[in-house]
Amino acid sequence: MFRRRSTGQEGVRTAKTEVAPSAVTKSSPGSLVGGIDLGGTKVAAAIIGPNSEVIAYSKQPTPDRGGPADVVRAVVATIEAAAAEAGVETSSLRGIGIGAPGSVDSSAGTLSGAGNLPNWKDSYPLGDELSQALGTPVSVGNDVQVGTNAEYQLGAGAGFNSLLGVFWGTGVGGGIILDGKPWKGRGRAGEIGHTLVRRGGARALNGLHGTVEAYAGRKSMEDKARREVKKGRKTSLFKIMKKRDKTSLTSTVWWHALEDGDELAEDLLHRAVTALSAGIASAVNLLDVEAVVIGGGLGVRFADTLVPQIIDGMGAYLLDPENPPTVRVAALGDNGGVIGASLLVS
Amino acid sequence: MFRRRSTGQEGVRTAKTEVAPSAVTKSSPGSLVGGIDLGGTKVAAAIIGPNSEVIAYSKQPTPDRGGPADVVRAVVATIEAAAAEAGVETSSLRGIGIGAPGSVDSSAGTLSGAGNLPNWKDSYPLGDELSQALGTPVSVGNDVQVGTNAEYQLGAGAGFNSLLGVFWGTGVGGGIILDGKPWKGRGRAGEIGHTLVRRGGARALNGLHGTVEAYAGRKSMEDKARREVKKGRKTSLFKIMKKRDKTSLTSTVWWHALEDGDELAEDLLHRAVTALSAGIASAVNLLDVEAVVIGGGLGVRFADTLVPQIIDGMGAYLLDPENPPTVRVAALGDNGGVIGASLLVS
Repeated sequence: MFRRRSTGQEGVRTAKTEVAPSAVTKSSPGSLVGGIDLGGTKVAAAIIGPNSEVIAYSKQPTPDRGGPADVVRAVVATIEAAAAEAGVETSSLRGIGIGAPGSVDSSAGTLSGAGNLPNWKDSYPLGDELSQALGTPVSVGNDVQVGTNAEYQLGAGAGFNSLLGVFWGTGVGGGIILDGKPWKGRGRAGEIGHTLVRRGGARALNGLHGTVEAYAGRKSMEDKARREVKKGRKTSLFKIMKKRDKTSLTSTVWWHALEDGDELAEDLLHRAVTALSAGIASAVNLLDVEAVVIGGGLGVRFADTLVPQIIDGMGAYLLDPENPPTVRVAALGDNGGVIGASLLVS
Repeated sequence: MFRRRSTGQEGVRTAKTEVAPSAVTKSSPGSLVGGIDLGGTKVAAAIIGPNSEVIAYSKQPTPDRGGPADVVRAVVATIEAAAAEAGVETSSLRGIGIGAPGSVDSSAGTLSGAGNLPNWKDSYPLGDELSQALGTPVSVGNDVQVGTNAEYQLGAGAGFNSLLGVFWGTGVGGGIILDGKPWKGRGRAGEIGHTLVRRGGARALNGLHGTVEAYAGRKSMEDKARREVKKGRKTSLFKIMKKRDKTSLTSTVWWHALEDGDELAEDLLHRAVTALSAGIASAVNLLDVEAVVIGGGLGVRFADTLVPQIIDGMGAYLLDPENPPTVRVAALGDNGGVIGASLLVS
């Protein structure tokens, strides 16, 4: 029933991009911009050329304790590392865009309600703080909205008039393009992770029950895995985590556990896939978009294995299964976040 | 947490509107238009004046067997009755709009997939057939989309930039206004009745499980009531239905059963209210609209009793319960359908 189109991306990319000196010499620093993808697990930053090409890239873990000032320090260090790799000063960039997880006031440059960042509930002047530290204007956008826009302008969503972006990672984020323009509602539209699939069901980390994120968010999945282990269930998930020197169950850890045939990983990923199928189909029944683009850490990691299962599963929940939207895997992969953020620079 | 604004409508209106002879003498027939609301239970038709005022109104039950031709006959009879009451010929009207339940191709004037009409699955030239019979151009729109547009232009949604209309009746329909314009997607956006609240839950009449309509649609509620009676549960619902000479559990029947303290009616209406709260909140998390307007036969009937419960119940499912959308009861009541349909006439 669902035909899956080629994504132009086979397998998994590691995001680390080497410096391309020719690009730097061809572009004056003033034609370069910065793009920062601030996620719940990692901060990624890139120096981006005039054709949205990634010239240099750096990443580091997002601080999991402290507060906004600690996160800002990590963000500054990451973009400075990318700039150093490209041989430019951040102050020579035309501007920097940052996609951040939470409620963004883009005119004020503030971020609030960032549940996946440490102690970041109240509004904080992220744009001003970064701008001061980096010596160039910094524009702030919502991470999944900018990621969706990147896929719409340059990636798997190009050519469609309406689009739902689903970013399956630490949480489950979403962005909406309608009639060729981002739909932001009162500021935080697109939160498909917080739509229902099972009233009264599993509790997500934000306290809502039975939402897509409660089943499919990587943090919720890890919580559930820990609870199952406490109940005595066997799994290789945490052994793989330690072996790979990780402090949480990253996409890579889930990937290896599934490859090993770990039953708990299989069960929890199946549960996530089912919730994503149901939630995306439910959103399509409401919005009737032409296309859905699935990205995020887990979405990219499982592009060839679980995403086709998500697409197949949607049929049972679609109002008109004969006429499904086109579903594609994000074509920009891990780079969608930094490229999308760089598009915030006007 | 939720403040309920005044709706400008206290209690329930019966829709029958007397002829207003002064309006007719003031308006030449060419300034009048027709509006038809084709629902799963009744066909309503009105002659509408230049200020969207209802000049004459007629209604009759929708045929529950046969096919499109039988429905068209009933529609023609209803609008002819309204025209006769207004003292005009349908052929003298500037045009007629009809809001119909299903998938509408408005440029072709066709209707398909009308699950609440008898044997109306395939595309049928509703506009052409009516136009031929009535001697004036007939425009076809989706019933809930035109109802939402009426509330947006003239009713409870006036002044908002984005709006979700929820029509709680035989089914649960919805319409979306974004950035001041109807959002139709690929033709059938707004189907909040077919969004999920409980994966694997109750089966709706269209076969989807766990949707808002499976719990809150009047037809689904009646089915459930019949199954409960078969299991031996006591209720006054069907006695009231017979006493009032109805063949199905109309809004009025549910109303009287609730007034009588009938326990099954209470349980099923509570179940419906919960599903509506959850489904509307879930849609708000995705769309982040400024306002929600609740209408439809049951919505209007229970404006003062159950709708406030729906609004209160939303808090548990909203991503940002401190910042809920404004929720209002449809201000045009039963007339929203015919007035909205008349707005299709350009």
